[in-house]
Amino acid sequence: MIKVGIVGGSGYTGVELLRLLADHPYVKLKVITSRRDNGVAISDVYPSFRQKTDLKFSTLDKDSLIECDIVFFATPCGIAMSQATRLIKSNIKVIDLGADFRLQDTSTFEKYYKIKHSCPDLLKEAIYGLPELNRTAIKSAKIIGNPGCYPTTIQIALAPLLRADAVDTSRIIADCKSGISGAGRKAELALLFSEINDNFKAYGISGHRHVPEIIEQLRKLTAKKIDLLFTPHLVPMVRGMYSTIYAPLLKDFSTRELQSIFRNAYKNEPFIDVMPLGSYPETRFTRGSNMLQLSLHRPRDSDIVILVSQDNLLKGAAGQAVQCMNLMYDLEETTGLLHIPIIP
Amino acid sequence: MIKVGIVGGSGYTGVELLRLLADHPYVKLKVITSRRDNGVAISDVYPSFRQKTDLKFSTLDKDSLIECDIVFFATPCGIAMSQATRLIKSNIKVIDLGADFRLQDTSTFEKYYKIKHSCPDLLKEAIYGLPELNRTAIKSAKIIGNPGCYPTTIQIALAPLLRADAVDTSRIIADCKSGISGAGRKAELALLFSEINDNFKAYGISGHRHVPEIIEQLRKLTAKKIDLLFTPHLVPMVRGMYSTIYAPLLKDFSTRELQSIFRNAYKNEPFIDVMPLGSYPETRFTRGSNMLQLSLHRPRDSDIVILVSQDNLLKGAAGQAVQCMNLMYDLEETTGLLHIPIIP
Amino acid sequence: MIKVGIVGGSGYTGVELLRLLADHPYVKLKVITSRRDNGVAISDVYPSFRQKTDLKFSTLDKDSLIECDIVFFATPCGIAMSQATRLIKSNIKVIDLGADFRLQDTSTFEKYYKIKHSCPDLLKEAIYGLPELNRTAIKSAKIIGNPGCYPTTIQIALAPLLRADAVDTSRIIADCKSGISGAGRKAELALLFSEINDNFKAYGISGHRHVPEIIEQLRKLTAKKIDLLFTPHLVPMVRGMYSTIYAPLLKDFSTRELQSIFRNAYKNEPFIDVMPLGSYPETRFTRGSNMLQLSLHRPRDSDIVILVSQDNLLKGAAGQAVQCMNLMYDLEETTGLLHIPIIP
Amino acid sequence: MIKVGIVGGSGYTGVELLRLLADHPYVKLKVITSRRDNGVAISDVYPSFRQKTDLKFSTLDKDSLIECDIVFFATPCGIAMSQATRLIKSNIKVIDLGADFRLQDTSTFEKYYKIKHSCPDLLKEAIYGLPELNRTAIKSAKIIGNPGCYPTTIQIALAPLLRADAVDTSRIIADCKSGISGAGRKAELALLFSEINDNFKAYGISGHRHVPEIIEQLRKLTAKKIDLLFTPHLVPMVRGMYSTIYAPLLKDFSTRELQSIFRNAYKNEPFIDVMPLGSYPETRFTRGSNMLQLSLHRPRDSDIVILVSQDNLLKGAAGQAVQCMNLMYDLEETTGLLHIPIIP
Repeated sequence: MIKVGIVGGSGYTGVELLRLLADHPYVKLKVITSRRDNGVAISDVYPSFRQKTDLKFSTLDKDSLIECDIVFFATPCGIAMSQATRLIKSNIKVIDLGADFRLQDTSTFEKYYKIKHSCPDLLKEAIYGLPELNRTAIKSAKIIGNPGCYPTTIQIALAPLLRADAVDTSRIIADCKSGISGAGRKAELALLFSEINDNFKAYGISGHRHVPEIIEQLRKLTAKKIDLLFTPHLVPMVRGMYSTIYAPLLKDFSTRELQSIFRNAYKNEPFIDVMPLGSYPETRFTRGSNMLQLSLHRPRDSDIVILVSQDNLLKGAAGQAVQCMNLMYDLEETTGLLHIPIIP
Repeated sequence: MIKVGIVGGSGYTGVELLRLLADHPYVKLKVITSRRDNGVAISDVYPSFRQKTDLKFSTLDKDSLIECDIVFFATPCGIAMSQATRLIKSNIKVIDLGADFRLQDTSTFEKYYKIKHSCPDLLKEAIYGLPELNRTAIKSAKIIGNPGCYPTTIQIALAPLLRADAVDTSRIIADCKSGISGAGRKAELALLFSEINDNFKAYGISGHRHVPEIIEQLRKLTAKKIDLLFTPHLVPMVRGMYSTIYAPLLKDFSTRELQSIFRNAYKNEPFIDVMPLGSYPETRFTRGSNMLQLSLHRPRDSDIVILVSQDNLLKGAAGQAVQCMNLMYDLEETTGLLHIPIIP
Repeated sequence: MIKVGIVGGSGYTGVELLRLLADHPYVKLKVITSRRDNGVAISDVYPSFRQKTDLKFSTLDKDSLIECDIVFFATPCGIAMSQATRLIKSNIKVIDLGADFRLQDTSTFEKYYKIKHSCPDLLKEAIYGLPELNRTAIKSAKIIGNPGCYPTTIQIALAPLLRADAVDTSRIIADCKSGISGAGRKAELALLFSEINDNFKAYGISGHRHVPEIIEQLRKLTAKKIDLLFTPHLVPMVRGMYSTIYAPLLKDFSTRELQSIFRNAYKNEPFIDVMPLGSYPETRFTRGSNMLQLSLHRPRDSDIVILVSQDNLLKGAAGQAVQCMNLMYDLEETTGLLHIPIIP
Repeated sequence: MIKVGIVGGSGYTGVELLRLLADHPYVKLKVITSRRDNGVAISDVYPSFRQKTDLKFSTLDKDSLIECDIVFFATPCGIAMSQATRLIKSNIKVIDLGADFRLQDTSTFEKYYKIKHSCPDLLKEAIYGLPELNRTAIKSAKIIGNPGCYPTTIQIALAPLLRADAVDTSRIIADCKSGISGAGRKAELALLFSEINDNFKAYGISGHRHVPEIIEQLRKLTAKKIDLLFTPHLVPMVRGMYSTIYAPLLKDFSTRELQSIFRNAYKNEPFIDVMPLGSYPETRFTRGSNMLQLSLHRPRDSDIVILVSQDNLLKGAAGQAVQCMNLMYDLEETTGLLHIPIIP
């Protein structure tokens, strides 16, 4: 059994990790930390875990993680990098669901996250945890920077097009919509039910932190300059992420050719579902599962539109992290990740 | 493998059965019918099943169910009883999630459901499928009337009290609240998002069809007259059922004694969670799982208040039906039913 | 024009007062305070007020309220009583939407609110602001304790029955359901969209602060002992309150007689709508309006059930306060309060 | 008083018209028709109108509208054009909130709406009812084609840019999001609460009926070819519409210059609010009001992004229609339309 620790277990990403790992056939949960709920049983904070686990939340201290084989960080920026060096030295693998190990460019990191990177040497060894684009490196990784939720949808949508040199990379637009759980479990007025329900809005249109991550990764797929216009919006729903991505085509592709490009790119991918032409993904059809569903549209000859749906807490966070762990331990990639979405 | 058919598979109860049975380790789905979606792949109606099943919806005809070992009916009143006789004759077991085999008293049935019972003889063999109160009979049953959602919560809450002769059975009040999926997948104005969202209401306060079912079952536990005041309400949420049940106490029980009565009654029950005194169940903590959570309160010395939460589509319908099937086939009762609720 | 101040204007009750008063034909808004948003334009916090008002939030200081004729407090417990004495001395009327002036019994107040009452003498002059039961006193009041939201529904439902000596006052049950805005605009985890959406729960079943207020008021209508079992619940909707009230009848009333009792009691009330027998109120039909709608049911001969619906922020708070102000200034009681609910 | 008829009064647009007109100081409602609810009191279908109106729904027959001065059609395609000729002959003005009189090009109309236009001559006299772009013509109109909801947001966002020849009209993208009430009050599975809640999706990406309307109108503002990529989405909220509009700039405008262009374009418009630079509209801040709020952003130098929010049932439908009526009767344009949005 893989001995696992979760740091930051009482947030939404943490509790989703907990749900996945508590049922994972090769995992033994050893430690789960939460500053807020130190000493409290998981099942007291989340009674959905009554009769499922006896673990209590603890605080993060020097020794608590030492018996783990792998530690997941579901924490705000800065925590993972403060712990990673000593964990790696003790031969403990790390998957950070935050941003500490996503960006190789530390100056960009420091500009966007307003914090100095404390272990740039370790960062060089970090692997970006998007299996569909980076599977081989993940398998032998010691430390993973797990992708952001928006970046996952955008990279999966654009990678086949960039590889085929099919679109004008200077004119891409990603109009993205996220459920509220993506904002985390924070006591903030803007996240109250009475502020969110029956309300829709854009936010962070200039300079969202996910942009440099997307650019840095996409650059590996093309030599061309990438200029991404990214507009995130908040949808009054708990889970789900929907990205509507617009790209001008460089050549005169038929829609079938484009569909083939995507079908071929993802034909062996267990978690990427290229839907038939004319389909419309809906977030409910990936809710609670690690699947990402996408479809192509051509409302205007000059452009391709890609519609992408995923559960922001699964393929956009905790599910993807477990997928990486499976790869790192040479398990079947889908182990513990084959939930059927809950409908309705 | 148990060969299973589902009649009425495109409704909410049907698709939930499908989710449970598609992952059940001892089940092979053979047939799933839907008049509305005849000939259409399940995954075209519910793309959440893409890559999970290749089955198509078919119509209900004479021969289609003949290769099944057991057939679930998730249909409106009348369908199950029209098919049951021939199925039972062919040695095929039946679990009806509708009302055809719940009430032994056919005159009450006919009064409430406005339809004549077509197989009263078969009805006599039918077993009421609430495992916590009827486990032995279910094990050898050929035909099951699966309980209604409200009745499950009310019976589980009252059974220990009736057995202990603890409450005045002529003064019980059940104030119940249901998510909208309980009303089914019907194209009706009253169920539209724009009518339901940000709205709360009572309905059916006089003469809800679930009342005679509850009374008939509770009578098995007490010789006293039972007079139940039952008020159902609709909550603007998809899943979840919450019953607040009030009963005047006949004797001077301490709260601890009452708690012991419940703890003892359900100590071996895998799906009944008697929470610690002072707890408040919340529907989200049973969402997507077959657990029923309840807690006791004593705001007024003369009364006990029981708060009960379940997922109306699981313990209130499809989950309970699978629990019955497990018993009928001598499987571990929890097989395929140990999902951890999805939070948030 | 009546010069008006609002203390605590950026909470949900405060902003609803603002909406009502900004359109009131005889009111001139002079001051609106908010610690959180001091110095910020109302329209920057709530852009719904752009082009409607130029007022800025200010802090509460000695002189700021002195030019007002009347001051509304939409503040947590303790603020209103700290300011009331000096305001009343300056001949400024006070309407407190909080709890400082609701309870005449200061020992009960101090037990439930864990704070000493700082002006018990002034409290004696305070009038309970429920116009339907207390209109004459309100007209000449200097200081008003505006009723709580739950107490408004319960008193309106029970008053006619107590006056007619129709029900057993020791066995009343009020099963109440509130939209989330009733919990106020506070940065708390329990109020986040991701915790509330698609979730239902009871809370505060033993010892909710509204119980003594209800009892104190109802005692004015009957000499009998009142024992109220009160269970509040939270509904995943923003606005709306629904109370389902159960009372055993003392005599053999026909349903028509009971309906007449209510019709007569409220026949001249502009904001109380006794619906026809058999009706079901829904919270959406009072959303955004000061109307309270109720209907009677008799599912069991021995009991009456009263269903009550109101908008918790209007008739349950700000609307009621403006109704009181209209009475205090001898205006038509409905002035500025005749909004048609917004459907859908 | 203007004598008004509403045809199709029980749908969401119809009932919103009713709300606005019932409180309009210069309007007397004479007739309101509904096939579904013929003979039923408005207040029985919508108890929110109890004590507000005694009108009953009637059927549309020859004589019923003859005493009206103006008739609003809130009906599916085809009804308004079947009635308009005889009404206009009787000197009764017509405002159609449907599509019958929006498109001057009947072949396009017939292609998109699959129905022959029955009065092409009358159509020539019809005026497109967007006051901000067409005020003078509306004032003397006899028959108005009231704009669609999406087209209103897109035209208001683009008009100043087209007039200034500022953007590449062949590369415009409108990524639009609508609340569910926009789909109307129809008994369809896809509109059920259990299908919509916690779900987000795109639809109608190729060939939405609103595209030709937008193009036809925008052509009046520019000689250039307009190629619009329009993607509508459904948001799990009842009311509200949000359009995120992307346009490549033709020249090197500063953001301030662009802001000035918009400020100047709409400086006298009572219902268009050009928010300060950096603002984010939210649909809740226009909920229940006729205001449209917009803001400009420049996340990428080469493009302008316009965020637009409105209530789809007000400025997107019924509010705009009343605004037109005010103009047609030479009333103050804002009469009966100055509601403050309801927050929260």
